[in-house]
Order: sequence, then structure tokens, then C-alpha cells
Amino acid sequence: MVRVAIIGASGYTGVESIDIILRHPSAKLTYLTALPEECGHVADLFGQLSGRVDMMVEPLDVAKLAQAADVALCCLPHKVSMSFVPKLLNAGVKVIDFSADYRIKDVAVYEQFYVPHTDRDNLKHAVYGLPELFREDIKKAKLIANPGCYPTGASLALAPLLKNKLIQTRGIVVSSVTGVSGGGKNPSPNFHFPYMNENLYPYGVGVHRHMPEMEQVASSVAGEPVELLFQPHVGPFDRGILSSVYCEPAGSLTAKQVQELFADFYKDERFVQILSKPPVVKHVAKSNYCHIFATVAKDKVVIFSAIDNLIKGASGQAVQNMNLLFSLPESMGLE
Amino acid sequence: MVRVAIIGASGYTGVESIDIILRHPSAKLTYLTALPEECGHVADLFGQLSGRVDMMVEPLDVAKLAQAADVALCCLPHKVSMSFVPKLLNAGVKVIDFSADYRIKDVAVYEQFYVPHTDRDNLKHAVYGLPELFREDIKKAKLIANPGCYPTGASLALAPLLKNKLIQTRGIVVSSVTGVSGGGKNPSPNFHFPYMNENLYPYGVGVHRHMPEMEQVASSVAGEPVELLFQPHVGPFDRGILSSVYCEPAGSLTAKQVQELFADFYKDERFVQILSKPPVVKHVAKSNYCHIFATVAKDKVVIFSAIDNLIKGASGQAVQNMNLLFSLPESMGLE
Amino acid sequence: MVRVAIIGASGYTGVESIDIILRHPSAKLTYLTALPEECGHVADLFGQLSGRVDMMVEPLDVAKLAQAADVALCCLPHKVSMSFVPKLLNAGVKVIDFSADYRIKDVAVYEQFYVPHTDRDNLKHAVYGLPELFREDIKKAKLIANPGCYPTGASLALAPLLKNKLIQTRGIVVSSVTGVSGGGKNPSPNFHFPYMNENLYPYGVGVHRHMPEMEQVASSVAGEPVELLFQPHVGPFDRGILSSVYCEPAGSLTAKQVQELFADFYKDERFVQILSKPPVVKHVAKSNYCHIFATVAKDKVVIFSAIDNLIKGASGQAVQNMNLLFSLPESMGLE
Amino acid sequence: MVRVAIIGASGYTGVESIDIILRHPSAKLTYLTALPEECGHVADLFGQLSGRVDMMVEPLDVAKLAQAADVALCCLPHKVSMSFVPKLLNAGVKVIDFSADYRIKDVAVYEQFYVPHTDRDNLKHAVYGLPELFREDIKKAKLIANPGCYPTGASLALAPLLKNKLIQTRGIVVSSVTGVSGGGKNPSPNFHFPYMNENLYPYGVGVHRHMPEMEQVASSVAGEPVELLFQPHVGPFDRGILSSVYCEPAGSLTAKQVQELFADFYKDERFVQILSKPPVVKHVAKSNYCHIFATVAKDKVVIFSAIDNLIKGASGQAVQNMNLLFSLPESMGLE
Repeated sequence: MVRVAIIGASGYTGVESIDIILRHPSAKLTYLTALPEECGHVADLFGQLSGRVDMMVEPLDVAKLAQAADVALCCLPHKVSMSFVPKLLNAGVKVIDFSADYRIKDVAVYEQFYVPHTDRDNLKHAVYGLPELFREDIKKAKLIANPGCYPTGASLALAPLLKNKLIQTRGIVVSSVTGVSGGGKNPSPNFHFPYMNENLYPYGVGVHRHMPEMEQVASSVAGEPVELLFQPHVGPFDRGILSSVYCEPAGSLTAKQVQELFADFYKDERFVQILSKPPVVKHVAKSNYCHIFATVAKDKVVIFSAIDNLIKGASGQAVQNMNLLFSLPESMGLE
Repeated sequence: MVRVAIIGASGYTGVESIDIILRHPSAKLTYLTALPEECGHVADLFGQLSGRVDMMVEPLDVAKLAQAADVALCCLPHKVSMSFVPKLLNAGVKVIDFSADYRIKDVAVYEQFYVPHTDRDNLKHAVYGLPELFREDIKKAKLIANPGCYPTGASLALAPLLKNKLIQTRGIVVSSVTGVSGGGKNPSPNFHFPYMNENLYPYGVGVHRHMPEMEQVASSVAGEPVELLFQPHVGPFDRGILSSVYCEPAGSLTAKQVQELFADFYKDERFVQILSKPPVVKHVAKSNYCHIFATVAKDKVVIFSAIDNLIKGASGQAVQNMNLLFSLPESMGLE
Repeated sequence: MVRVAIIGASGYTGVESIDIILRHPSAKLTYLTALPEECGHVADLFGQLSGRVDMMVEPLDVAKLAQAADVALCCLPHKVSMSFVPKLLNAGVKVIDFSADYRIKDVAVYEQFYVPHTDRDNLKHAVYGLPELFREDIKKAKLIANPGCYPTGASLALAPLLKNKLIQTRGIVVSSVTGVSGGGKNPSPNFHFPYMNENLYPYGVGVHRHMPEMEQVASSVAGEPVELLFQPHVGPFDRGILSSVYCEPAGSLTAKQVQELFADFYKDERFVQILSKPPVVKHVAKSNYCHIFATVAKDKVVIFSAIDNLIKGASGQAVQNMNLLFSLPESMGLE
Repeated sequence: MVRVAIIGASGYTGVESIDIILRHPSAKLTYLTALPEECGHVADLFGQLSGRVDMMVEPLDVAKLAQAADVALCCLPHKVSMSFVPKLLNAGVKVIDFSADYRIKDVAVYEQFYVPHTDRDNLKHAVYGLPELFREDIKKAKLIANPGCYPTGASLALAPLLKNKLIQTRGIVVSSVTGVSGGGKNPSPNFHFPYMNENLYPYGVGVHRHMPEMEQVASSVAGEPVELLFQPHVGPFDRGILSSVYCEPAGSLTAKQVQELFADFYKDERFVQILSKPPVVKHVAKSNYCHIFATVAKDKVVIFSAIDNLIKGASGQAVQNMNLLFSLPESMGLE
């Protein structure tokens, strides 16, 4: 029985992680932490857990955590995360980190898009936790950088084509729409119901932080530098990301070839389903699945991928990584 | 041409009022005010007005307002409102006040549900601005207390029955569901999209401030004290209030009698439409209409009324009142 | 391992039942049926099950079903249901029926609200499957009438008060709002997105079929005839029912007494959580829980209950019943 | 006073047209038609018009229409439209046609995407009714082909760049999301609320009928053949289209240059507002405005445009065209 701590239990990915671990047959929650002002009994904090779990959320005490848990799901924002992760690792706890702090290998790029990096040592050994692409490395890791939500969907959409050098490595456009839970739990004018409802809008034009993360994964898979434009939008629904990816074929390529390539590339992957028609976001809501449809249209290769941003894009993927870390069946607790 | 000032232009009812006055053939906006930190060009503040109006929103200057405007639509919250209204009246400006400060005639009741009252003099002369019930008084008023959104729908549903003493004056239940714009423009956890979407919940059980307002109007119409339980809920839509009203007949009463009573009572009212089937909120969205269906079911009289909380429940009704005040056709600008 | 057949797998409650059984540790799907034109591979029919189950949906063959399954979840509409249930029972299969055909004990009432009854024999032995109220009978049943969605929430809200004779048995109002999945899977103008979105409306005034079902359960619990008015509404969300119940106390009663009564009445019930504040529909979505808050306001007893109409109001409750039938832990597969 | 007939009054664009004409100071409704089974009193057919208009919807009688009206807004689907339009023109009525029948000048292209064309004569003289690009032709037309909703937003986004030859004429991607009203009034599984809500999905990959229409307008503006990939998606909201357009600059181009170009190009256009930040769909809902933001990101020119699909994308644009046809102020009735 893997003993699991959740750090930052009060946010959306924290609660989602609690929900998954509660249903996991070989893992149990042993320690939940949040900022002091967000502590208390789980059922009082999250009405949807009323009657399901009898635990307190406490302020983080690293020593206590190290005694209680084998692994920490660290659901903190960037910058905060890298101030705690070294202590956890030093205390012998494996860490699956949800922030961006250990995802970007190039410190200069990280610092351009985020803040000065304060834990370069651990960054070197961190493994990017996208199991379908980096499974073997994940199994041996002590620190896993859980991927961003958008990069998860985009990377799974691009990998088969880049790996096989079937598309050009420049001019790629990733145009995505996310549900509002992607914006987190803090109320703001942009996500106030009467503003967000009946609405849809682009944001972060040319500057979204997930763009360099996507480029890093894409380049790693392609074995050469890949440049892409990532354009996020937010739409009036809770959960899910649909990414529509447009790219230029490297040579002649038919829809049939593309479809067979994807079917073959992911044939052993439980959580990636290749469809024969475009995916719909609702079908992956509340699940760890990624649905993909790829084709050729008007001389472009077009790929659509759909995930639940909080599950395959965060907490579900973290548990998938945890299962790999502890030699459990990869899909355990994720059905 | 009636010159109109809007005080508190930055909230939902303020913007809605701007929108209506812009389309009004015999009224024009001459002065817009907001808190200093919410001032600026209208098009920058409210994207939906881009290209439609070239005006600045400024901090309130009573002397300037008095020069510029014949009437002020005062879209301020309670307590703040009664600190400005006396100055406006003294400067010779007619006032249509959206707050609760001049609605409740019994100061003790006001103070129980709100705060200490600081303008009892003007309270005495204020007229409750529900045209269908108090039209003649409105025409002669200097200060109009624009009704609350819930009381508008509930009062129009109850008036024909109470006026004709056809229902018992105790045991009435008003069970309403409002859209989220009723909660105002400030972001809060309760109205954060990922919380409010796919949700519905009751609030203010037994203590909502619109309950005594409803009782006052109902008692005034009935000519005797009326007691009712008002239970509000909020649902995942922008606009509208559906009120489902349940009451006991005073004697024998058929569905047909009830329907004829309503048709007759409102036969000359442009903005109250009596339907032959239950109303749907969407049909009154963005309009000043109130749709009503009344019947008898299982020995109860059941009435449903639907309004747009921001129009008939606020800004539209204010303009209807303004039209009466300035001897314009009552429906002008409200089609 | 309980072998489960699902009859009428293509509707919302059918798919929901598939989803639950797939995660149930001691039950497995062995047979799925639908109308001939709705048959095929599960993953093709229901995109959300892609990769999760490799089964065909076939036209119903009773003999084949009897060989394959110990129990049938019969997700058919009324009238159709009672044409198949006798055959299933004769073939030795236990049946949990989702239709109204075996819920109403008084045939005259059934026939007034539905159609002529064609299986009075089995009706006599059918047990009403609301475990919190009729658990011991359920354990011994061969045919369980799974309750309607609205009656589940309303009955759990009324039972503690009626059982203890603390409210009057006349004049009760049950005012409910359901999500749109309650209307089923068939497209219709009333549930077309551009009509239903940003909307809310009442329907079935005084004539809804769940009203006599509620009265039957309420009368059974009270030990005397109970009369109530049930008024349903539909709102713009997928799942959930909020019932707001208004009734008259039989004598003096405080909010504290009511709250203690409910806490005590349901203290051993896993799936009924008594809250200290009003429930929110979203917190029970996708769960088998019923959240209840009861209090006294303006001399009325007011009770709010929230359930997921497809889970506690249908498929989850059916599995809860199945667990009781087969001596499994009652909450198995429902966390 | 322009006398207006609406043919096909029962669909979404028909009702929207009624609503606009009712508020138009220099136009009045004189004749409304629909299929026989959809006829009746306006208020019974469209609850939102209750009390606003006292007219019947009748089956079409061309002679009667020709007597009653100066212009017909023809809100019929393609194929049906071209079976009536010749008769209307012959009877001396000007026609603004909402279907695709008179939009595509190349009959071969029309027939590839639609059906055999049966009115080539009138097709030759039809004018494409996008006032911002073809105003002078519109003023002199007898038959106006009102543009498709998607092409309206996309064309306004591309025109300044193509006109000035600042982007490459190949490789353009138009990735759009529409609200559900774009799918029309007929219920279907894809737009059933429980399917469409909390959902978003692409459709028509590589084959949408608005793609050749966009290419025709783009080529006409550019003065050379333009090729683009149009990818539509549908999202869970009623109204609006956001188009995100990605293209390659023809030479070096800065964000500032692009923004100045757009501001200049549309400086005299009332209904095209150039923003300094990305548009939000909600701000154009229920209005005839198109909001545009254009910039450069990662070596691509990126343009976002937002319109209301039923107004600027259909009925509002038709009235804008009607105003031009009858020498009325272009924005009359559209504020």
C-alpha cells in the first residue's frame, strides 16, 4: 500500500488527487497539507467529499510528512514548489511535482517565462512525467515533473509525426480551448460566471508559458529543434482541453497513412485512444484518457486531441506516474 | 430630450441602464459616474459598448451632475445610496434609486435587515416604483425607490389574488431561482465559473432581505398584513428570475377563474403578459416583460412569473419609471 | 462475482450503469441489450467508453440472458418494461427495474397516470428499492422497483419528519429543479441546446407522474395518507436534482430540533449526509450521495435535498440495491 | 417606411430578423411566411415576442407578398431558396437571401459542395452582401447574397492583409468556434443539451461549405487565388463565433504595423471595431459589431475576430444591406 501525501490539497488538482487516491486499491492518503488559512476537516473544506473521508488538512511539516508518506503529490504553484521539493527529497520522499519548476531543462528559458530558478541541482535529475513518451525514465525517477495540461494534449498529438519526421518542424500551430477549471480556484473577473458564461476568448497571445514546454518535448521527440505557435483560448465549460494542431507535411502524406501511423504508435497505450472521427471533449471528462483523431486536409496535417485538464492533464497523470514509480499496474485507480 | 445621469455606472445595472438609454429616442446620457478607481472611457471599461458611445465615466460631482441632468439613475448599493440621494434631491435632480434604502417604509424593519437609516425625511416621500401597481403615485414623485428584482416578479404574481382576497394571507411560499448576474459584478468563490456552472443551490434561508419588501407590497395590495416565506436559489445562467408561488385559496377557486382573473387584471399592461402555459426564463431575457401563468393544482393556487432581473427587475423598470416621471410613453425605449 | 445484464443499455441510465459496473470489484458485465437499431460495439456507441470495455450490445434474447446473468438492470421505459420483466423472472433472473411499472402499488393510480397494467402478479411482490427506508425487504426481493429520481430526493427529505409525525400530512410542497439528463437521451425542441441553455422552466403542473409515487412512499412512512403538491422544473445543467420541500410543523418545532432529528435518523446511512448548511447540486454530481439540510423558517419546516438524478436517482441506487440482493457491502462500487 | 417580408420566419434567423425590424424606425413587417405546419400567430410561435407584435405567419403566396412588401428577407435553406427567389424577383421584390445559393460565383464549386444549381441567371447578378468590402455594389443590387456567418468573421479578419499583399496567399488557417445556434433550430443528438453542454468539438474537417466561400471572398480582395484551411468547432454557448486566423507574413511585419493597418483600414466602419487586446465573444452577443484584434506572434500573423453569428453573421447584416439598398443610414435599427 503506497502511502501518499498531498501538498496543496485545497486547489483543484489537490482535491482531484484526493478523489483518485481514495478510489485507488493500492494507495492510501496519509497526509494532506495546505496553507494555514485553508486547513481543517476535509469534509468541511470540500463538500463533495462529505462522508467519503475523515481526515484533517494541516500546514506542511516536512518531518511529519516524511514519516507518514512514501510519495508526495506536490500541487503547489511554480516558485513555491521549488522551495519545498529539495527538503522533501532530502527527507527521502519521492516527489511528483505539478508545477513548472522541474519541467523546463533550459534554465534560461525557464527564467525568461517564469522566475529565477533556485533548485538547479534537482532540476538536472527531474524526469518529465509523460508516460507514453518517457516511461522507462519515469520508473527510475525520484523527482517527476508532471507535465502541464496543454503540453500533455499537444505532445501526444505531435509525437508520432515528429518521431517519424513526417512533418516540418517549423510553422506548427497548436490552437487549444480549455475549460475554466484550468484557470484555478481563485475567483477573478475573467472567470466570474456572468462574464465567462456564454463566452469564449483567446489569451496569452504569443507568450503562454506552456509554449516553450511544448517545444522542449517536441524537440526531444523529433531529435531536432521544433518551433511552434501555441494559442490558448478559454471556453464556458468546466473541464477538458481540445487541441487542434495544424502542420505542414514533410513530404507526401495521405489521411490513411496518418491514421495508421497513429493507430500503430499508440497501439499498446491504454490511455491514448485513436478515433476514426474527431474527438469530443465531453467523452474524456473525468477520465485519464486522451482521444486523438489525425488526418490530412487541404495539404495540412490536422490533429485533434482531447483530455481532461485536471486528470490526464494533472492528477490522473500524476497517479499514472506514481503507479510506474511503485511498480503498480499503470492504470490502477484510473478506470 | 430627458437628460440622464447614471451614478454607479460600472456595475451590471449601471451598464444595462447605459445600454437602454443609448437606444431611448427621447433621453440621452449626459453624465456617468463611478468610484475613482473605476473611471475612464466607457469603451475601455465595457467592451460591449465599444464604438457605441464616446463618453467618460467620472467621479461623482453633485453640482456638475445637477447642471447636466434632469434625472439620476442611482445604481449604488444600500447605505451608500442614502448618503448621496439627499444631496441630489436638494440640487433639484429627480432620483430613481436602485438600492433598498427607500423601499421599506417601516424603519425598524429596514434597520433589522440592513443598517441604521440616515435619511428618514426623504424615505417618507419616496414612492415604490412598480408601475403596474403604483402608477399614479410614480408620476408625481421626486424620489422613486426602484423595486428589488425578486419582489418585482413576486408582487406581480400575487397582486391580482391579494387585491381580490382570493388567497389566504398566511402560508404563502415564494420559491425563486435567479441567474447569476443577480449576485453582482464582484468575483467571489460562490460565483466562480467552475463552482457555479453545473450547479444550483438555495441561500438566505428565512433571512433574505427581499422577504420584508415582498411582504410590504403584498400587505399594501391586500389591505391587511400578509406573511410569506421567500426562498431564493441561484442557478447556472446569466439572466432571469423564475418565481414559483404556492398559496392556499381563500375559498373555492378553479384554474379557469384564476386565469381569467389574471388576464383581466393585467389586460392594459404592456409589460405583463399572461400566458396559457408556464413561462420560460429565456423568453424574457433582455426584455422588460414579465410573463405569468397562474392555475390551481392539488388545492393550491400556483403562480409562475418570469422576468429579466437586470431589466424588469432593475434598469428597464427604472426607465419605465423615468418615462412616467417625464410624461413620455411608458414603453418608450423598452421594446 | 455477480454477473450483470443491462437491458436498454443505450439510454443515459444504461450507460451510467455500465460505467458503475465496470468499476465494481465484485460484479461484471456479461450481457448488454438494446433495440436492434441501437446495437453494435460499446465503444462505437458510447465514445466515453472507448478503450474501457470490449463488448457488443445485442438485441435482447431472454434465454441467452438467463444463461449469462444473475441479475438484470432493466433500463426500459414504463409499459415496455412490464412486457419483459415476467419473462426474466420466469427464467430465474433477479430484476432491478428502472421503470415506473412496479413502483405504484395501487393499480388504479398507476393506470390513471400511466397505461393499463399488464403484470399485476409481479407487481404484488415487487419491493420499492429505496434502501434507506426499505432495506430489509430489498434483501429478500426477486423484483425491485428502482425509485424515480424525484421521489428519491423528496422521500429522503420527508421521511424523518413523517415517521415522527412532526409535520402536517397535507399542504406539503415539493418544488424541484432537475438537470436536463432527467429528460432522457432523445433530442426534442425543449432540450435543444439553444432553447434549454440560459433557461429554466416549470412543467407538469399538478400532473407529474412522480407525485403519486411520492405520496405512496410518504404515506407508507407516515402510516397515514399524505397529500403533497410536487412541482418540477428543469434547469440548464446536466445532472442533479435539488428539491426544496416546504411543510407545516404539526406542533412547535425549532431548527435545532429538526437538525438533530435528521442527524440521528440518518446517522448510520453512508449515502445520506446531513449538512449544516444548504446543499449544492454540484457536490453530489457523479456520486451516489444525497445531501440534506433541514431547518425551520417563518413557521415552516424547510428541507433541501440534492442528488445526482442518474446515480442516486437511478443507476447508483440500482447497484446499491444489487449489493443488498447479493449480500455484498452496500456501498461497494459506489465510492 | 420600407415594407419588409420575412420568408422562413420560423427559424432562428427569421425570428432574429423579426426582432430587429420591430425596432427599426424606418421599416415595418408586412408579411411573414413559413411552412404550413409552422404557421400561426407570432406570439404563439415565439414566446419571446408575446405582446410585442400582433401578426400571423402564413404559407408563402408570392403575389400577396409582392403587394405587401418592398423587400424580402429570405431565410430559407439552400436549394429551397433558389426555387423561390426567381419568382420574387420577377414580381419586382428586392431579395436579401440568407442561403448559400447566390454566394458562390463558380457554379462548379457550388455544385461540388451543395447541389445542382437551378438559377444561374440570377446568380450572375447577385451581389455578395458584405458591406465593409462591397458597399457600392450592394447599393445597386436587386438580389443580395447575405454572407455565411463564418465567412463574415473570417473575411473581415483577412481583408486588410490580403488587400495590401502583406501575407502569403497559401497556408492560411481559419480555426473557428461557433455557438450552437449556428446549427439551427431542429433538435438533433449533436445539439441535445446533455450532449452539447460541457462539450466542445471540431466538425467538417476539410470539407465545410463555408471554406470555398471564404476563399472566393479572400481571392476577390487579394486579386489573386487564395487558399485556406477552414476548421470549425462548436462550443457550449448560444451565440457568437470566434475566429482565430493564423497566416504567414509575406515579408517582415511587426505587431505595431499590423495593428495600425487594421485601425486605418476600418477607421470609417461603424460595425468593425479594432481592439488593442483579443476580443471576447460575449461583447458582441446580440449586436451587429465585429471585434478584431490583429498582431504578430512567433513569426505568424494572428488575427482574432468575434461576431454574433445570428446578427452580423445573418439578420443584422441583412438589415445593414437593406439599409444600403433603400438609402437609409447604414446603422439604422442596428444599435
